[in-house]
Amino acid sequence: MGEDSGHQRRLASFQQQINTLLEAHVDRQIAQGAGEVAVESKRVLMAGGKRLRPVLMMMAYEACGGTNQEDIIPLALAFELIHTATLVHDDIYDDAVQRRGVKTIHASKGLAKGVIAGDWLFVQGFGLGGKYEAEIVELVSEYCSQIAQSEFLQLDRVMDLKTSPEDYLSIVIGKTAGPFAAGCKAAAILANCSIEQQRSMQDFGRELGIAFQLVDDLLDIRGDERMGKPRGADIYEGKMTLPLIHSLTLSHGQRRERLAYLIENFADNYFDELIELLNASDSLNYTEILINNHIERARESLLTLPQNDATQLMLWLTEFMQHREV
Amino acid sequence: MGEDSGHQRRLASFQQQINTLLEAHVDRQIAQGAGEVAVESKRVLMAGGKRLRPVLMMMAYEACGGTNQEDIIPLALAFELIHTATLVHDDIYDDAVQRRGVKTIHASKGLAKGVIAGDWLFVQGFGLGGKYEAEIVELVSEYCSQIAQSEFLQLDRVMDLKTSPEDYLSIVIGKTAGPFAAGCKAAAILANCSIEQQRSMQDFGRELGIAFQLVDDLLDIRGDERMGKPRGADIYEGKMTLPLIHSLTLSHGQRRERLAYLIENFADNYFDELIELLNASDSLNYTEILINNHIERARESLLTLPQNDATQLMLWLTEFMQHREV
Repeated sequence: MGEDSGHQRRLASFQQQINTLLEAHVDRQIAQGAGEVAVESKRVLMAGGKRLRPVLMMMAYEACGGTNQEDIIPLALAFELIHTATLVHDDIYDDAVQRRGVKTIHASKGLAKGVIAGDWLFVQGFGLGGKYEAEIVELVSEYCSQIAQSEFLQLDRVMDLKTSPEDYLSIVIGKTAGPFAAGCKAAAILANCSIEQQRSMQDFGRELGIAFQLVDDLLDIRGDERMGKPRGADIYEGKMTLPLIHSLTLSHGQRRERLAYLIENFADNYFDELIELLNASDSLNYTEILINNHIERARESLLTLPQNDATQLMLWLTEFMQHREV
Repeated sequence: MGEDSGHQRRLASFQQQINTLLEAHVDRQIAQGAGEVAVESKRVLMAGGKRLRPVLMMMAYEACGGTNQEDIIPLALAFELIHTATLVHDDIYDDAVQRRGVKTIHASKGLAKGVIAGDWLFVQGFGLGGKYEAEIVELVSEYCSQIAQSEFLQLDRVMDLKTSPEDYLSIVIGKTAGPFAAGCKAAAILANCSIEQQRSMQDFGRELGIAFQLVDDLLDIRGDERMGKPRGADIYEGKMTLPLIHSLTLSHGQRRERLAYLIENFADNYFDELIELLNASDSLNYTEILINNHIERARESLLTLPQNDATQLMLWLTEFMQHREV
């Protein structure tokens, strides 16, 4: 119990540190005359967010025995800036009006400014990330390319009821788990870990990232509005989440027809019926089992690392992320 | 005459080299499974373009005494990839259907894929540029931030008939001249030039970049369709080009009212009348004089450099760009 609140405090302190540094970075740009593009970007950047990528990187760096946080911080900020850039651009073509409880940039300032502000955030991230050695730059540009690639695949699967679990996994690995894996691996490299430990950290990030996305999928069906987006948002957008894919794969006859109809014509008053059908195929339960498995694998990959406070914190974080409700 | 065709041949050979390397870069990504995002990006990237930024950088590197083209080539490619990324994104909010004679990505594959393909091109550029030393990375991220900043300013000036020549210049410096200046400066740094020569190269790029934009402005009014965009495109988009700004500043009373009306309600059959009004305020002539001045300044900044074949080629290029018709 006491340990738990100690971990909570450390997580909060990492998040606080990232928030302070992100704000300072953008404020410096504004002081240098960056103007409205920076002001708008800051509005979305600082409106919240769990800062998972940078926090994980800082923890991984410590767990790997790194002692100079200055080595990892610019890269951790870069990952968060790039992540926010992708959100700003995602929101444009999802036509989302709100993000983290504030108005999206394209909704408040128009399409052009939304596109450009996303570009600006990318540039800020690459500016920070580009100062590292070639191996790190390669990692960053590789995972960013993979995000774009996977987003193309995902777009092709929108409202595609034949999307397979393999399609799903390949999209999730590129779009969500890839950045987690690259961040953890980069942290291990910067902490001068062995190749084996670098690989363990990369595995950890990938497995945790997959679990993270699966939890997101469940929250979209079960969650409340604390995430800053309404329940069922994925279904309305035609995003094929794992519970839907699993249920569509297992259901037959009339039941599958009805499920397809509900997905294609989704409305709030179909929620209970949808959940009933998902439960009939045990799909929510199946998703939970998958989450368990990936969390378990993430935890196992930590075994090759020195067992220190930071490793303990990372173990705790896997549980925290597994049971998060927002 | 003989010299001129020699210069022409060298220019064409630089362009050819860039084209070959750009294509090879993207083909490598495709071979590694980058998929449709790379295929679509390649379609626009390879559809043409004068490759001015990379060509200038290669010339500047040689003029500064650089002897190993391998040093400058990845950066030159990065500049062209980033330039194309901005075009792909510009075309989205300008809702342009064609670019370099082929269909734009958003027009053929939808908004989402247009946004993401632009991001992918950015990432390719940053991946190549990020492998250089911190000073170069700083230059790249700085000029890219400035592009975004200037695009915000430009958007605020769309159809704003009170746009001043100073507003115009600040937008052009950030958006067009900045990348030219950064590219030439980076080339000088990589060739181990003195600080003074680095500054001369930067000045050269900036002055040539401004002249380049002014020529573009004139071509929009006088040009034909060989540029791949119809004459008057800027006016239809509400872009305040220098001839318009100059004429609006000098015209009074009924003449200014009529000019404002023509700009705000532009149609092809107003073209002759518009040109008449621009000539009444001598605005096309004024723009030509400005072009001369900036070209002259660009040429002067070459004087501090070693006078070699590459410097001669750059001098020739200033004239070539001044008198270009496409």
